[in-house]
Amino acid sequence: MVNTMKGRFITFEGCEGSGKSTQIRLLSEYLDKAGVSYITTREPGGSRIAEQIRAIILDGKNAEMCDGCEALLYAAARLQHLKEIVIPALDAGKLVLCDRFIHSSLAYQGEARGLGREYILSINAEALELCSPDLTLFLDIPPDAAFRRKHGADENDRMERQGLDFHMRVYDGYKKLLREDPHICAVECGGDKHETSQNIVSLLKDRGII
Amino acid sequence: MVNTMKGRFITFEGCEGSGKSTQIRLLSEYLDKAGVSYITTREPGGSRIAEQIRAIILDGKNAEMCDGCEALLYAAARLQHLKEIVIPALDAGKLVLCDRFIHSSLAYQGEARGLGREYILSINAEALELCSPDLTLFLDIPPDAAFRRKHGADENDRMERQGLDFHMRVYDGYKKLLREDPHICAVECGGDKHETSQNIVSLLKDRGII
Repeated sequence: MVNTMKGRFITFEGCEGSGKSTQIRLLSEYLDKAGVSYITTREPGGSRIAEQIRAIILDGKNAEMCDGCEALLYAAARLQHLKEIVIPALDAGKLVLCDRFIHSSLAYQGEARGLGREYILSINAEALELCSPDLTLFLDIPPDAAFRRKHGADENDRMERQGLDFHMRVYDGYKKLLREDPHICAVECGGDKHETSQNIVSLLKDRGII
Repeated sequence: MVNTMKGRFITFEGCEGSGKSTQIRLLSEYLDKAGVSYITTREPGGSRIAEQIRAIILDGKNAEMCDGCEALLYAAARLQHLKEIVIPALDAGKLVLCDRFIHSSLAYQGEARGLGREYILSINAEALELCSPDLTLFLDIPPDAAFRRKHGADENDRMERQGLDFHMRVYDGYKKLLREDPHICAVECGGDKHETSQNIVSLLKDRGII
């Protein structure tokens, strides 16, 4: 379901270290200069309650968390964040740039954790009925290359310290989604970050989003 | 699905102030004397991660929490608690006495919040495939009578401070479940607590549980 609100909802997806937050920052700088009304936000989190849920999910001490619990916590944080932050901003006609959304759950929990696509969609049914991205940008860099590029990964972050095998399964999950869903667009991001940002701006212009 | 593990799983349900924790304590005292191997636990909570989720759900400052988020958090806490606490205890042949389980979600979120039975069952599908109660005891006292009896309700508890209308809808939800599900047994609990406890012991003996 594509959202019927006035604003546009753009989500950024990719493996750890793919440069999502950098690209959101560079796009924000462009939008500031262009005078476009927008907000940036992130998942899990983005609202007070959703950030409390984020803290449980990412706490490195919560190693015993089962996969199903993790998936349900992401879904809970998503729904709260949508209702409090994303939908009001879209209703106000703003462009919403969101770091991660449903495709993260499909790639991480559905594919890499093996919970399956249908299960992820069913526990996120209420969120997806409310709102779906107008465009999803997948920052396409394999995890091994991203890890080499990224410095200062947080060893206390439960998701970041998963092994490379896990992150390769996430990457494969994203590639599968890319083949199936025409709303996802891959962005090559192994090179210069400013060049990648220009490509993203062009993509948004081509689609009439900005 | 009835559980096929060695131990038996008994859940206690009812409105706020129905005396679930008192009855669990009195039954525990009986089981201690009778030499029955058991554990007592509660929802939401009962394990370290599930208690962290409980703290978010019940925090009186989280008034903006949407109903769907609340239902997903209960489901997340349930699954984690089942895997860490309930199932290992049942596997070890213990009797498990649990303060609230799926019928609380069906009565509170499904009925009183209006999310519907099917939605609650779908987000709890993984938990319910793992394990279902052998017997559910519904402590049957209308919320207005329970409120008059109960002293020291916690005003900072988000669920307890809902209005009486809400708790009447919960009670009606339980009554509906009682008509539909033969595994739920109503226990009249408006009188003397020791008499109620004796009735519960008789019920468990009649069903061969103790």
